[in-house]
Amino acid sequence: MKKPLILVVNDDGISAKGIRNLIRIMNNFGEVVVVAPDSPQSGKSHAITIEATIRCDKVIIDDGPQKEYACSGTPVDCVKLAVNQLLDRKPDLCVSGINHGSNSSINVIYSGTMSAAVEGALEEIPSIGFSLLDYAHDADFSQSEPYIRKIVKQVLENGLDRGVCLNVNIPKLIKGKELKGLKVCRQANANWEEEFEERMDPKGRIYYWLTGKFVNYDKGTDTDEWALANHYISVVPVQFDVTAHSSLSSINKLLLNE
Amino acid sequence: MKKPLILVVNDDGISAKGIRNLIRIMNNFGEVVVVAPDSPQSGKSHAITIEATIRCDKVIIDDGPQKEYACSGTPVDCVKLAVNQLLDRKPDLCVSGINHGSNSSINVIYSGTMSAAVEGALEEIPSIGFSLLDYAHDADFSQSEPYIRKIVKQVLENGLDRGVCLNVNIPKLIKGKELKGLKVCRQANANWEEEFEERMDPKGRIYYWLTGKFVNYDKGTDTDEWALANHYISVVPVQFDVTAHSSLSSINKLLLNE
Repeated sequence: MKKPLILVVNDDGISAKGIRNLIRIMNNFGEVVVVAPDSPQSGKSHAITIEATIRCDKVIIDDGPQKEYACSGTPVDCVKLAVNQLLDRKPDLCVSGINHGSNSSINVIYSGTMSAAVEGALEEIPSIGFSLLDYAHDADFSQSEPYIRKIVKQVLENGLDRGVCLNVNIPKLIKGKELKGLKVCRQANANWEEEFEERMDPKGRIYYWLTGKFVNYDKGTDTDEWALANHYISVVPVQFDVTAHSSLSSINKLLLNE
Repeated sequence: MKKPLILVVNDDGISAKGIRNLIRIMNNFGEVVVVAPDSPQSGKSHAITIEATIRCDKVIIDDGPQKEYACSGTPVDCVKLAVNQLLDRKPDLCVSGINHGSNSSINVIYSGTMSAAVEGALEEIPSIGFSLLDYAHDADFSQSEPYIRKIVKQVLENGLDRGVCLNVNIPKLIKGKELKGLKVCRQANANWEEEFEERMDPKGRIYYWLTGKFVNYDKGTDTDEWALANHYISVVPVQFDVTAHSSLSSINKLLLNE
């Protein structure tokens, strides 16, 4: 039997510690091809490069059997380029991450990591995004490995529903605190309260830095935020159909009096 | 009574014909503030600028009572900057567009125009994205105006469900063919079949252009693609909760045998 073909992507860039860990784990499961951004692409969401050219070069970052490509585009560009140009067959799995920082709740729509997984689902590849709630470059990914292995094994064996990928977030490692296991959740109703920091450049012109505070409005115990706060790994099934089906009839009434 | 405050944004850039038309129409409904990208931002999706600074300058593009700001960031940055920094009160309406080109079906997740509307919904502002299925810079927006007016009037008077915005797509104007009216739809199951065009630069290095063919797999007559093909204006309610609720139980079974 042929080994499964596994596409690995991320948004922190090809040399980030998170993707190096994910590649190492994936090498146990199949033939690994990495197509990842050549520079950090956090917050790039589902952006694609349509007004500019894309570069993609074969690289060697560290030891291991994986093939690797560094791409000048966004995480979604990486998936498209892998599937439509670089790979000779469709991957059996697409994994994205491990992201340095949370992609829970509303962060899912800003995240390059998760958009790569969503793009995988669009290409009908079982896809999973992994994130660790630790922004540090030298974050500790050790505790999460058995859970990543379990999820990958199940998804490789059984696939996922069509049009659905997984958003897996892992609590920050705290000494003396064990992870409690996996919890399947819905996306919490949470958001960022932005504050723009206004500064003056050396020429006296104003510019801004986007900053913000994360606020969870959701009291539900079935949400990813609850799971993470209670030291579970959250698993949210994510879809790319964004139709608000429950609003169809009220909009019909509003616009057409139907 | 105070006039409604209307935020206008787009992704084609502040001087595009589509946004100039939208501003002109919106000036009939209230006090208009434009915060739009200073350069084209098509395909930027829900990207935000977190690793770089943002510029934003007051500008005058043409006549009219509107206030205008040109912003170096993405469409979503424009909405965040408007709401959290530039405006002294919360807008009563956020409109995005009129985009030059379709944002129907799967295009909704790549679109900067629609992401700005989604961001408006996140900020709890009734929000609408408008797109015309005509990529031409000098596209003809005339026929769509009465429909835009109707939608804007209804939304200003009645609001929208919390967490929901509207994705409005308008068929390309064809001589002798009247628009048939509005149709409230779901997002069609359609996708792009990408092809990367491989080229060589003057130094002999490979680069790529992303190109593709749009394919509609969906035979439903309740979709936006059906409506547009049959010369209706499609209106899809769009939400930012991307949880695949219908997959929660199968994922629970898969991962936890529950």
